[in-house]
Amino acid sequence: MLEKTTRINYLYDFYQSLLTEKQQSYMSLYYLDDYSLGEIAAEYNVSRQAVFDNIKRTELMLEEYEEKLLLFTKFQERARLIRQMKELVSEGSSSADELLAVIVELEKLD
Amino acid sequence: MLEKTTRINYLYDFYQSLLTEKQQSYMSLYYLDDYSLGEIAAEYNVSRQAVFDNIKRTELMLEEYEEKLLLFTKFQERARLIRQMKELVSEGSSSADELLAVIVELEKLD
Repeated sequence: MLEKTTRINYLYDFYQSLLTEKQQSYMSLYYLDDYSLGEIAAEYNVSRQAVFDNIKRTELMLEEYEEKLLLFTKFQERARLIRQMKELVSEGSSSADELLAVIVELEKLD
Repeated sequence: MLEKTTRINYLYDFYQSLLTEKQQSYMSLYYLDDYSLGEIAAEYNVSRQAVFDNIKRTELMLEEYEEKLLLFTKFQERARLIRQMKELVSEGSSSADELLAVIVELEKLD
């Protein structure tokens, strides 16, 4: 569950600008501010079920956007390559060729 | 005009997965295969005006997606930093600090 929450948080971070205002409000209260479904329902004067349905639908949309645009996947891959470059540079003993190889991998991600 | 075409080509590259199949077909024939509006209209058995309207609307959508997600902007920024890193590494005389500074800038883009 924690892993799923982390994933949704990341996807929300990448794709929130593509969501409606209401979707953004529900998602941000539920996932960022840790409101319960009941608390959001009370706040918006709608049923708990309506909030639940909206959030589930939004989660599906986020996964669909990720399937199409791969922003989270590429972000993770880039983070890995950046870590690798930092290590190579910090070691001091890295050759230019090793570094260039990582830079080229990074370039290919775009 | 050439500059606009290049920009639309890039935006299309980044956001085509968010378009409908018809939008993808028209855009790809017009921008990638250099068909005229009339040729696309004949191919799809619709009016030239219908093709024109669809393509104009799609271009607007691409700009809206870019406003929201900034994929092209970030791509250009990343390309600039990658060029900078390559130069630093190839010169051979670069310090680890200079390289790390660029890597950190790259990291901040995500």
